[in-house]
Amino acid sequence: MKLTRFTDFGLRALMYLGAHPGRPISAGEISDRFRVSRDHMMKSLQALDAMGLVSATRGRGGGFQLTRGAGLARLGFVARTLEPSLALAECFEEESTCPLTGGCLLAGALGEAQAAFFDTLDGYTLGDLVAADGPHLVQLGGLRVG
Amino acid sequence: MKLTRFTDFGLRALMYLGAHPGRPISAGEISDRFRVSRDHMMKSLQALDAMGLVSATRGRGGGFQLTRGAGLARLGFVARTLEPSLALAECFEEESTCPLTGGCLLAGALGEAQAAFFDTLDGYTLGDLVAADGPHLVQLGGLRVG
Repeated sequence: MKLTRFTDFGLRALMYLGAHPGRPISAGEISDRFRVSRDHMMKSLQALDAMGLVSATRGRGGGFQLTRGAGLARLGFVARTLEPSLALAECFEEESTCPLTGGCLLAGALGEAQAAFFDTLDGYTLGDLVAADGPHLVQLGGLRVG
Repeated sequence: MKLTRFTDFGLRALMYLGAHPGRPISAGEISDRFRVSRDHMMKSLQALDAMGLVSATRGRGGGFQLTRGAGLARLGFVARTLEPSLALAECFEEESTCPLTGGCLLAGALGEAQAAFFDTLDGYTLGDLVAADGPHLVQLGGLRVG
């Protein structure tokens, strides 16, 4: 059971940006801090931009910042939107070849469990996570060399 | 967000066996009905055997049957046990390179959501699913040729 890397990186980018308010932060800085691919991090940042959670400024000194109100976004909403597919199992997919599709209680149980997953995440806003982790993240930022 | 094929096949095999009591059923029959790889289905069946949910008989006419009491198994228990990794995101893994590991509220929120997922599945037993889907599954079995 796994979220995609796309969602994983997106969530971490939001946390990093939330802990470093007041200046645009480049995709390279974020990916360096998390030791992950800059290209993949950039794709997640672009999705966050499209969702209105971050805004980008171009040019020298440019980068990404959280938009006003991003801290109010619920974590379940963010994860649900970033995940490219919510097809938990083959039977959830449109081209499913499972002969039980339609009348299957298993799919219903899995769907209910998935809803519980995202509902639980909706109990947290980005602001909740950043507020608690801010000092830790800022400390990490302070350790950054260069 | 996805369960592994391993878990997906395992759950479907349990449903099929539950709907066809009284005779051993081969991995080939199950994989044919679901139009999936026999080898992969066999791996899931072996895991179910190790969990005590199915028993295998060898030789001509052999195959798999649900064990007595398998219908009482909770779906969350089954899925939690079949899933090879419960590492929802990179930060859940032992070799995580995320600098936030340890002090991160995001991982806590994700872990809580994952628990809600499996807890919801634990609201169902295999017997619940088979009892409701039995006629449907039996009908599919009846359509089988050969």
